Amino acid sequence: MTTTDRLREIVGADFIRTDEAARAAYGQDALKRGHPPDVVVLPANTAEVAAIAKFCDDTRTPLVPRGGGTGYTGGAVPVRGGVVLSLERLNRILEIDELNLLAVVEPNVITGDLQDAVERVGLFYPPDPASLRQSVIGGNVAECAGGPRAFKYGVTKQYVLGLEAVLPTGEIVKTGGKVVKNVVGYDLTHLLVGSEGTLAIITQVILRLVPKPPVQATLRAIFPSVKHAVDAVTRLIRARVVPATLEIIDGDSLDAVAQYLNVRSLAPARTAALLLIEVDGLSEQVSGEATRVEESCRDAGAMTLLRAANDAERQELWRVRREISLALKTIKPLKFNHDVVVPKGRVPELFALVDTLRDRFGLRIPCFGHVGDGNIHVNIMAADDATEIARAHEAERVLFEGVVALEGSISGEHGIGFAKAKYLGIELTPETIALMKRVKAAFDPHGILNPGKIFPDEVAQ
Amino acid sequence: MTTTDRLREIVGADFIRTDEAARAAYGQDALKRGHPPDVVVLPANTAEVAAIAKFCDDTRTPLVPRGGGTGYTGGAVPVRGGVVLSLERLNRILEIDELNLLAVVEPNVITGDLQDAVERVGLFYPPDPASLRQSVIGGNVAECAGGPRAFKYGVTKQYVLGLEAVLPTGEIVKTGGKVVKNVVGYDLTHLLVGSEGTLAIITQVILRLVPKPPVQATLRAIFPSVKHAVDAVTRLIRARVVPATLEIIDGDSLDAVAQYLNVRSLAPARTAALLLIEVDGLSEQVSGEATRVEESCRDAGAMTLLRAANDAERQELWRVRREISLALKTIKPLKFNHDVVVPKGRVPELFALVDTLRDRFGLRIPCFGHVGDGNIHVNIMAADDATEIARAHEAERVLFEGVVALEGSISGEHGIGFAKAKYLGIELTPETIALMKRVKAAFDPHGILNPGKIFPDEVAQ
Repeated sequence: MTTTDRLREIVGADFIRTDEAARAAYGQDALKRGHPPDVVVLPANTAEVAAIAKFCDDTRTPLVPRGGGTGYTGGAVPVRGGVVLSLERLNRILEIDELNLLAVVEPNVITGDLQDAVERVGLFYPPDPASLRQSVIGGNVAECAGGPRAFKYGVTKQYVLGLEAVLPTGEIVKTGGKVVKNVVGYDLTHLLVGSEGTLAIITQVILRLVPKPPVQATLRAIFPSVKHAVDAVTRLIRARVVPATLEIIDGDSLDAVAQYLNVRSLAPARTAALLLIEVDGLSEQVSGEATRVEESCRDAGAMTLLRAANDAERQELWRVRREISLALKTIKPLKFNHDVVVPKGRVPELFALVDTLRDRFGLRIPCFGHVGDGNIHVNIMAADDATEIARAHEAERVLFEGVVALEGSISGEHGIGFAKAKYLGIELTPETIALMKRVKAAFDPHGILNPGKIFPDEVAQ
Repeated sequence: MTTTDRLREIVGADFIRTDEAARAAYGQDALKRGHPPDVVVLPANTAEVAAIAKFCDDTRTPLVPRGGGTGYTGGAVPVRGGVVLSLERLNRILEIDELNLLAVVEPNVITGDLQDAVERVGLFYPPDPASLRQSVIGGNVAECAGGPRAFKYGVTKQYVLGLEAVLPTGEIVKTGGKVVKNVVGYDLTHLLVGSEGTLAIITQVILRLVPKPPVQATLRAIFPSVKHAVDAVTRLIRARVVPATLEIIDGDSLDAVAQYLNVRSLAPARTAALLLIEVDGLSEQVSGEATRVEESCRDAGAMTLLRAANDAERQELWRVRREISLALKTIKPLKFNHDVVVPKGRVPELFALVDTLRDRFGLRIPCFGHVGDGNIHVNIMAADDATEIARAHEAERVLFEGVVALEGSISGEHGIGFAKAKYLGIELTPETIALMKRVKAAFDPHGILNPGKIFPDEVAQ
């Protein structure tokens, strides 16, 4: 029996795709590189997922789980053909439990849809990756998605209480549960979070919710240098304010947005860095904190300072941040989009490093990101020609080595996938990589689940 | 060369103990059951820990790491002799980084000492196990310690950013780091948290800190039934208040304290449940939240309601809670102290279950704990005689089965150790246990590290 025949038996003929268009579509993600699968299968439920895994394990067929397909490192795309298992039919919110402050969802619920649903009852699911209108909870869990609100609220990991998952060998396991404390056996839940679909296929997620903060205040401050902006962040932290978001946008990114939108005022002259700061909580507290934010920015030498008076003004302040991705595309066709992270006190050193890369490699490298977490999106822009691409790759290696020297990490949000696998050894020792590979083998003895990801020699195979 | 000779070579003669008193002392923890080691070794640093592990692995000698020795499930005590490795000499706070909001510590820093040190600079390390003046950070990490503040602040897991650890085979690994976001490879950090010293020996910990909340308000409310008390909690949650602590004490526990201290007013007549509630934060917010707490308690039928006007009154309100452990000892000599957890909405069902156990087994079972987390300490009291002990064990099995039926977990704070290993299968499926054992083998191929813990058939060996 062929793979396609057996999969058809499991899910029915309507839920198999082998046409070229589907294979191309399911063969890439936001990285725009990948390899088509031989077949795409769309199971209806956990039992079908388990049967598919068992078959792939028995026949040693590569099996790649896929959620929203919005990743930046190729985590959801095949590199060796085989089967793409799209979880798109497992897309229901099963339960929103207001009393126990939790939600039970299938993996392909769109993150923004869940947020809307829980906010309607006064609750809040904080993780807010930029892709939240396209990406799904299962993918957010597999990648441990972050977002601007992580400074105050933490990343996806902090909200996952329990999982149902299918092992590559076909067993269904449940980890954690509906309780916020559980120390029975090993914490497999948080081992699966961020494992990039290489250990198990997530089929159900129990998420912790928090009360929705009733009030926000949004502020924008403009600084003559990144150093001044980070000084403002330092002063804020010393004033013990914990903003929900603390975003930085550098001059190069602002120029790109101003030019793209043709609104010069979005990037005032001599702006080297813009901070977008949001505090939230009870109204009693928010106005006091906003005032302290203003003081911190003023004391750090902010050139201008705005505070949104209403939601329209708030949206206007966020507009620059939201338009960056599209604006950058107008600079150069290729964007090597990195999500490095350093201890927040070392952010000025990170920006200084990027300056040296700009000079040395003659490339535009607009930067923006979550300065409160030290998590900066460094975008190495390149023309679609071989020499410029080679320069961009050289620059990214120097960037990663520099970030690790600054006690940082080469990825704070996007994961490794296959795109960064060759750089893993910059951050992790051979002993740690060997240990991780033994953990992988404990879950996936035949190496069928999402092969070619994370580990460097897997890529070389 | 004997084990003792080789260990002496590694750490020096002054840091080996083989005398009976030491073997007895290091052969038990707060559970007061265990088995003496053949030798106790006190290494000075990570390199010595690694050399000890390598030797034990090569010679297949059981190796049991030990922190403060305050655990309730025998996690730090040998069940098969061998070597106890006490980390007591690794006891320094290496760094408190105010700007990056983190601390780097050796494992045997006493938790309360770290809290004092960070609070002196306006920071806060929230996890507050009852043992915080004796237990140490390394043990808190190994067990994923909780405490009253977990409702608002989370458990130890939420504060561990990175670890240095020695594998049973002697390799030194570093996981995570000084950044709050890191998605490079598998999250070994959080796999080690709560692994009860069975996967690796923790030799350094990087902890996240938060700003110290400047103001607290402490309230006490007394209710005619557990149901009334839980109703108050529900109302609080619906009012979107997030107290730092939400402790419940049942009538049986209150009676024990009142009798022990001979202060009848501590347990007013007809009290079935007492709530101790603390809100913290900025002063702007705390007084508003305290008022909402009072409203919620009053609306739920509180018989009396107190709010501490100053720190002396606050300490007085906490006094009942602090004296429970000592008071219970006066009831019966043996206390089977369980830390079960259910979704908080099901706490009344848990108390109803305990009532049936009291009737059926004729035992006193005072209960108290962290009602906001649904995490209740159920103390099955017994005389030191065989039939009563047998009844207590029967009651605990029925308790665990009932808790799992309520979508809960058999341990929210204390872990499994060897004391609860035989009950693991009540909560976890054979597939999940088998997977955890494969993970164990990935770290500890020869099974030398802390053998006989967590897994049921290990105990039977």
